[in-house]
Amino acid sequence: MKILITGGAGFLGRRLARKLLELGSLALDGGAPQAITRIDLLDVVHADGLTDPRVRTLVGDIADPAVLQQAIGADTRAIFHLAAIVSGQAEADFDLGMRINLDASRALLETCRKLGHKPRVIFTSSVAVYGGALPETVRDDTALNPQSSYGTQKAIAELLLADYTRRGFVDGRALRLPTISVRPGRPNAAASSFASGIIREPLNGEAAVCPVGAGTRLWLLSPRAAIQALIAGCELPAEAVADRVPINLPGVSVTVAEMAQALREVAGDEAADRITWQADERVERIVGSWPGRWDTARAARLGLKGDRDFAEIIRAYMADDLPR
Amino acid sequence: MKILITGGAGFLGRRLARKLLELGSLALDGGAPQAITRIDLLDVVHADGLTDPRVRTLVGDIADPAVLQQAIGADTRAIFHLAAIVSGQAEADFDLGMRINLDASRALLETCRKLGHKPRVIFTSSVAVYGGALPETVRDDTALNPQSSYGTQKAIAELLLADYTRRGFVDGRALRLPTISVRPGRPNAAASSFASGIIREPLNGEAAVCPVGAGTRLWLLSPRAAIQALIAGCELPAEAVADRVPINLPGVSVTVAEMAQALREVAGDEAADRITWQADERVERIVGSWPGRWDTARAARLGLKGDRDFAEIIRAYMADDLPR
Repeated sequence: MKILITGGAGFLGRRLARKLLELGSLALDGGAPQAITRIDLLDVVHADGLTDPRVRTLVGDIADPAVLQQAIGADTRAIFHLAAIVSGQAEADFDLGMRINLDASRALLETCRKLGHKPRVIFTSSVAVYGGALPETVRDDTALNPQSSYGTQKAIAELLLADYTRRGFVDGRALRLPTISVRPGRPNAAASSFASGIIREPLNGEAAVCPVGAGTRLWLLSPRAAIQALIAGCELPAEAVADRVPINLPGVSVTVAEMAQALREVAGDEAADRITWQADERVERIVGSWPGRWDTARAARLGLKGDRDFAEIIRAYMADDLPR
Repeated sequence: MKILITGGAGFLGRRLARKLLELGSLALDGGAPQAITRIDLLDVVHADGLTDPRVRTLVGDIADPAVLQQAIGADTRAIFHLAAIVSGQAEADFDLGMRINLDASRALLETCRKLGHKPRVIFTSSVAVYGGALPETVRDDTALNPQSSYGTQKAIAELLLADYTRRGFVDGRALRLPTISVRPGRPNAAASSFASGIIREPLNGEAAVCPVGAGTRLWLLSPRAAIQALIAGCELPAEAVADRVPINLPGVSVTVAEMAQALREVAGDEAADRITWQADERVERIVGSWPGRWDTARAARLGLKGDRDFAEIIRAYMADDLPR
């Protein structure tokens, strides 16, 4: 089985590839596991650090149909479509967000449609599709009302994926990811970048600024659980999404103050005291429009799991990613 | 004030133009009414029957940015964007639906954004944005889950309009129209075409075939009330849609059997007996996915009105449109 990961040079893409290589197979239709014979990693930059002979890296612009035609063949059985312009950048550069988050997603679906082989497409959507006046607990059938261009573009890509799936052009699954925390590496242009930074930087002995109020509630998922959910989501049968293609993944609901307190408990005062607080109105507006909790009954029924609590998320980061 | 109507050669477009010409002015921002000095009617065919010197007809492809640049100027104060490929045709010709319902809507918004004058844009959306497992009464905040490409494309255009409005590129209002009945003229390629045909044809002495079961529930609005709602929607202040750009317009909830009975009461047995019943699975699948009723509390608060009952809708058709 051949698999494509878009955004394959990103941290989630590379981690997903490593996990798939480790598993060695996927069971797509309730049938026997099929061996993964190749993983293509497509991104604008070269995906480093993967030397397995099954891996091929492709460098190109995902919004360019010629690049997609090169990346997707009639033998591409599953596509994890992770490539995206993150929320803060899509808000700052409207055209870039539209080009990658919307046009490239559509071009990917069109490439599959033309090939006619109906591959499994796993699309990563986001908390950011929600917004406005929200119920305390968001459900899979709560109306989308995005308050950012990123959220709008993700919501549109979900709708396209659902229609392409309904028409039989692809076999799609949209997974709405909570905010991923703790991301390794450096801060990025996501409005939610701080949700990793306020844990990661203190654990690395560095200061971190929290740009939102201590009472801001977030809905979080660890990279480890996100990868598990992406793979489990890929293996879901078509019946699981016959009624509704997007699935809200489980998360942990915490305030920023509770995150700081968990850091204090897991790593001590010295680490926790490295967080300082300085409000950034731009970040607060975007992040504040996202739900802090959603009903995960459907995800649970489908066997999709999240983390137990935020302390577990910190410990997973320390085990998986903390530089030694 | 200069106004553009896309789909201006269609029956709603021409009727809207006539009503605007009769009114002579619009009050856009709670201020004094401003005189309507010109109405541009853009469509793929020439808009007939409007000889008022304030009217200019433009023939062109609305998905062509050059045509839009010609149609929209910095002095275009309000745009009624009615142009669309109807549901049955968008299902039969996927690319055509995408091109007109999605790409042209986006190109229209982009044309406005480049001009930078933030015109009022009134977009007509549809019951078809809903679908799947629905509550008995749909609300403005019920999740969209379209079961047709037409509904998908309308939902995407709503999302684009909301984001372009949030960013200040345009000043948008999306009005979700119930199925319009009774449309004058001939049947069209809309899956809901029968909702007019089973009244119009019998009143004109012709036979009509109803392609859905007698218990199928529809949500209907007369052309007369639709035009009133479009104009009232255009005059709504920005605060009315600050939370949520799409507004569900009021309608009348009736089964097809109740429609036939209303025809019998208003026009007699001879007319009602001209309806025959023959199920069409393609039509039942699309129309059956639409809600038969939605909560109209928000529309009522905003002063948007529908019809009293279906008998009134039939009488309005007989008064406005029945050939003498």
